[in-house]
Amino acid sequence: MTTSREVRLKSRPSGLPTNDHFEIVSVTLPDPAAGEVQVKNTWMTVDPYMRGRMYDGPSYAAPFQVGQAMDGGAVGTVVKSNDPAFKEGDTVQSGFGWREAFNAPAKQVQKLDTMGLAPQLFLGSLGMPGLTAYAGLMRIAGFKTGDVVFVSGGAGAVGSMVAQIAKLKGGTVVATAGGADKVAFLKDIGVDHAIDYKAGDLAKSVTEAVPGGIDIYFDNVGGDHLEAAIGAAKNHARFAICGGISAYNNIGAAPGPKNFLLTVGKRLKIEGFIVSDHWDLMGEYAKEMSGWIKSGKVQVRETVEDGIDNAVNAFLKLFSGGNLGKMLVKL
Amino acid sequence: MTTSREVRLKSRPSGLPTNDHFEIVSVTLPDPAAGEVQVKNTWMTVDPYMRGRMYDGPSYAAPFQVGQAMDGGAVGTVVKSNDPAFKEGDTVQSGFGWREAFNAPAKQVQKLDTMGLAPQLFLGSLGMPGLTAYAGLMRIAGFKTGDVVFVSGGAGAVGSMVAQIAKLKGGTVVATAGGADKVAFLKDIGVDHAIDYKAGDLAKSVTEAVPGGIDIYFDNVGGDHLEAAIGAAKNHARFAICGGISAYNNIGAAPGPKNFLLTVGKRLKIEGFIVSDHWDLMGEYAKEMSGWIKSGKVQVRETVEDGIDNAVNAFLKLFSGGNLGKMLVKL
Repeated sequence: MTTSREVRLKSRPSGLPTNDHFEIVSVTLPDPAAGEVQVKNTWMTVDPYMRGRMYDGPSYAAPFQVGQAMDGGAVGTVVKSNDPAFKEGDTVQSGFGWREAFNAPAKQVQKLDTMGLAPQLFLGSLGMPGLTAYAGLMRIAGFKTGDVVFVSGGAGAVGSMVAQIAKLKGGTVVATAGGADKVAFLKDIGVDHAIDYKAGDLAKSVTEAVPGGIDIYFDNVGGDHLEAAIGAAKNHARFAICGGISAYNNIGAAPGPKNFLLTVGKRLKIEGFIVSDHWDLMGEYAKEMSGWIKSGKVQVRETVEDGIDNAVNAFLKLFSGGNLGKMLVKL
Repeated sequence: MTTSREVRLKSRPSGLPTNDHFEIVSVTLPDPAAGEVQVKNTWMTVDPYMRGRMYDGPSYAAPFQVGQAMDGGAVGTVVKSNDPAFKEGDTVQSGFGWREAFNAPAKQVQKLDTMGLAPQLFLGSLGMPGLTAYAGLMRIAGFKTGDVVFVSGGAGAVGSMVAQIAKLKGGTVVATAGGADKVAFLKDIGVDHAIDYKAGDLAKSVTEAVPGGIDIYFDNVGGDHLEAAIGAAKNHARFAICGGISAYNNIGAAPGPKNFLLTVGKRLKIEGFIVSDHWDLMGEYAKEMSGWIKSGKVQVRETVEDGIDNAVNAFLKLFSGGNLGKMLVKL
């Protein structure tokens, strides 16, 4: 018998969520049944896409259910095993985030070979957000050496990987973030043109940074960032639409890009994508990225909140710019 | 010495153009110089894209100049030739529209083999608008047999070709037009679901017509049509953005699609295009389309205005829905 606390969705938020939409509940875990393992989570992730799962509607990810624990990525340690495939002390990855510990069928957790790296990296640069960056940049946008890449949310978990991958592969990078600390981080990681979107006219800043225009836009933000990208696009530019965090908490519809019609004359290709269509790239990506991290060619930044009590706060900070790099909860 | 009348841009319109933005001026043509021909136009075309050329800004087509004759597609007859490549009576095609007659270097006009068909077809179904339909549907949107194709402006020069090509190649077609006459025409040409966008809730009409969603959207209209298409799109649908006539006369920016963010979850591919990138397809297209027209498999509808005095009216009617099929001026 073990006690665990878990975060449940208490009610569906309309607009920006608050702590009141969630509750933390203690549960007791029996010993794992045959074929099960018991895992104590050491890290869990919060990601912007989870906001979409708080709506009750058809989407690419099933909605969270009111009154039930939410789920999401986590890494942890097997503390009890009732399955021959796992033993106590194994480091594992699972979709059972938002809780301190859990029992699950052995098939629903994966052994994690950390390759000597910190395990939480597999929730960020070496996990879903990193692969999102890679798939969007390389496969959706079709990055080629010499491309001018504009990435919004450049200091975030996905954006900071887009920026660094593009630099390492021979691109010129324009990236936006909000505030001086984040802009300093962008410069640290080699971004050619780091723009504080809160500090001036965004569209003007982008066109002044790269008067010749952009070949690729990687969108994490939407809204005025997307408009600025359409305005700055070269003919035949490619847009990888990963998300639009500026609108995730909108009540009702968000305004679309007012200059959308430039799509015709500029022959833009705008493509939305979700990472789960691109897991086939994980092998090549993890190999390349782990090498870059080990050699110091890629810098990984994390913002860490402590304990399950702060998990909701960590999530909410994603929408107020409270994270530099990957937002994580240490359990 | 011959007299010709030509339509000049008198001032740049803001918003919907009126007759006051244009003037008709008589000019005298000398005999053609060495290497030149003199052509009497028999037909000229007016097309929505010409509105964009009335703005003074960088675009894919050079702006018309105030005080000068506009240009555009025309077919005509050589009346005097001072070049061995042409003789009197030759039927030719040129970019010297908006005028009754002209002198030009022989290299700037092309002999037209009408294949026994009416010459004005080469300004419509067998010309630029037809190729626009074909390139957008086949190359940009990657049409495949069985696709559900939604085309806005389905009774227009481009849209009516999109609808018929998609039907002949084994698609299901949803098309919109304004008013009962146009909807009747859509049914005549075999459209599966003909929607009068003026008669009800457009988005609802589309999803009711094809509850399973659309694979392809071919956009001539923009605005609420584009939004309805995003809403009705299946996962991985492809959008060929040809134009957005609903916004061509907007003063200031047009609102973008409010549901743009569905692009991510649905993994939509939205691509703008212009026909001049796709002239390489003209050979295969003209061969296929001329066969279809001769055999009666494709119906061509024209709305014809008479004489240069009505050329501006013909153009303006494009923006009030005054054309069924291709709008032409008979000179």
